[in-house]
Amino acid sequence: MLTNRRELQIEWGDCDPAGIVFYPRYFAMFDASTDRLLSTGFGMVKIKWTAKYGILGIPMVKTGGEFFAPCKFGDEVAIDSEIADLSRSSFQVRHVLSRNGTKSVEASETRVWTARDPDDPGRIRAVPMPEEVVAILRGQAG
Amino acid sequence: MLTNRRELQIEWGDCDPAGIVFYPRYFAMFDASTDRLLSTGFGMVKIKWTAKYGILGIPMVKTGGEFFAPCKFGDEVAIDSEIADLSRSSFQVRHVLSRNGTKSVEASETRVWTARDPDDPGRIRAVPMPEEVVAILRGQAG
Amino acid sequence: MLTNRRELQIEWGDCDPAGIVFYPRYFAMFDASTDRLLSTGFGMVKIKWTAKYGILGIPMVKTGGEFFAPCKFGDEVAIDSEIADLSRSSFQVRHVLSRNGTKSVEASETRVWTARDPDDPGRIRAVPMPEEVVAILRGQAG
Amino acid sequence: MLTNRRELQIEWGDCDPAGIVFYPRYFAMFDASTDRLLSTGFGMVKIKWTAKYGILGIPMVKTGGEFFAPCKFGDEVAIDSEIADLSRSSFQVRHVLSRNGTKSVEASETRVWTARDPDDPGRIRAVPMPEEVVAILRGQAG
Repeated sequence: MLTNRRELQIEWGDCDPAGIVFYPRYFAMFDASTDRLLSTGFGMVKIKWTAKYGILGIPMVKTGGEFFAPCKFGDEVAIDSEIADLSRSSFQVRHVLSRNGTKSVEASETRVWTARDPDDPGRIRAVPMPEEVVAILRGQAG
Repeated sequence: MLTNRRELQIEWGDCDPAGIVFYPRYFAMFDASTDRLLSTGFGMVKIKWTAKYGILGIPMVKTGGEFFAPCKFGDEVAIDSEIADLSRSSFQVRHVLSRNGTKSVEASETRVWTARDPDDPGRIRAVPMPEEVVAILRGQAG
Repeated sequence: MLTNRRELQIEWGDCDPAGIVFYPRYFAMFDASTDRLLSTGFGMVKIKWTAKYGILGIPMVKTGGEFFAPCKFGDEVAIDSEIADLSRSSFQVRHVLSRNGTKSVEASETRVWTARDPDDPGRIRAVPMPEEVVAILRGQAG
Repeated sequence: MLTNRRELQIEWGDCDPAGIVFYPRYFAMFDASTDRLLSTGFGMVKIKWTAKYGILGIPMVKTGGEFFAPCKFGDEVAIDSEIADLSRSSFQVRHVLSRNGTKSVEASETRVWTARDPDDPGRIRAVPMPEEVVAILRGQAG
C-alpha cells in the first residue's frame, strides 16, 4: 500500500492551556498528511490530480482517533500515513503520529472518490476509482 | 443522562476552499460543547469544578465522527450533546450537529477523570468519579 | 457610523500553554465580527449582499491590533465593532474586545470593495461603493 | 540583526472559501516564525531559553500586517524574519512572507521581555534584556 512519512514540530499555537496539543489540531495535521500521501503517490499537487481524474475531491465521511500520550510545544514528531483499505469508490487512510519512536496518536479516516453526477450536475456522488488510481493507492504503480 | 444544546453560526474561518466546514473545526466545536455540557451540569465553570473535585482534567482518549452532510458559511446549526455512557473513571459524550433539524455530523468521545497519582505526584492517572459526579452525569442530580 | 456588539465566551481551544488567548484567534473573532457588523447593516447574510451589489468580497488589505490585557479560558467578553472610516472604495473597521468593561484588545482593519474587472474578467479590482452602501456604513440608512 | 528564513507549504486547512489563506492563519505562521528566529539565535528551544534568562515569556503587545497578494492551497512560501528594532525591554520582529520571490504579506510585531515582579510575584512586568540577549538579537553574538 502507498505510504508516506513527514516530520513536523509542534507549534505553540497547536497547544492548549494544559500545555499539550489541542486534539482538533491533530486532525488538521492528518488532513495535511493525507494530502501529502496522495500528492506523493500521484506525483502532482491535488489541484492537478483532481483535474486529471475528473473528480471534485475526496470528502471525509468518517474519522476516528486514539490518544495514547500527549505531545507538547516544541516536540519533534513524525506522521506515518498509509492507505489501509480500498473499496470500489472509497479508501481508508491510517495515520500514526509518533515522538521518539513511541506512538502518540493513531487515527483512521474514510474518504470517498467523488464527482459530479452526470445525470444531475447539481449533485455529487461517489464514483469508482480508475484502475490506475487503485494501483497507485495499492503502491503497485510504476 | 445529562444533556445540553447550544446553537451557533458557521463562520467564514471555519470553512475551507470547498466552501464547507474544515472537519477539524467540528472537533473544536464539540470540545467546547462538552465544556458547556459539564459546566451546565456542575453549575460552575471548569476551573471551579476541577478544583472542587480535585482533578487535573478530563483528557480525551478516543474520539470519532461521521459526516452525513456538509455545513457552509452562515449556516445556523445546533449541537446536542449528552452523556452516552459511564464507567468507573471514564465517560462517553455523544454530539449531534444538525441544521434545520437534519443531522449533519455525529461524534462520540471518551474522556477520563484524571488526577495526580498520590503515590507519585509527577504522574497522572485515572481515578474513580465521586458518586455526586456520577449522579450529575446521569442527570439524576438536583 | 454603523456599529454592532456581540458577546462570546473564550473557549479552551482559543488559548495557549500560557493559559491566555493565542492572539491569532482574536483576528478570527474580529473577522467574524466584521461579518456580523455588515450583515446586520445590510439586513442579509454575506452571500446575499455580495450578490446584490455585484461584488466578489471585501478582502483585507491591512490590519493591526494592540493587546492591553490577556483573556483566559471561560472569560465572557464583548466585541464592539464599528465602521471607523470610509473612502471611495474602501473602509476601516475598528474592534474593541472588552472584559467586564475593560478594554483587552483593540484592532483596526482596512477592507476593499472588490469586483471583477469588467475590462478583464480574470482580474479583480477595487470599485466605488454605491451610495446606498455608503449610507448604510455611515449608519444613515433606514 | 538576527534573521531566519523558513519555508512552508500552504495547507488546505489554512484556506477559506475564497480559496486563499484565512488571514488569522498568517499570524499563527508568524508566531511560529518568531519562535524559530529566537530559538535559532539562542541555540536552544524556548522552554530552555526562558528558563536560562529567568523570564516568563515574550508576550505580544502590538502587531500589524499588510496583505499584498493572496496565497492559495499548495503554494510554497518562504517567511523571512528579522529583529527590526530593540529597546531596553522590548523588541520588534518583522516578517515577510513571499511566494516565488514576490512579497505576499508583511507583518511587524512588538514583544516584551517579561518576568515576575520581584516585589510582587503575583504580577508580571517588563524587565531589561541582558546584554548577552541584546547581542544575540543584534546578530553580534558568537
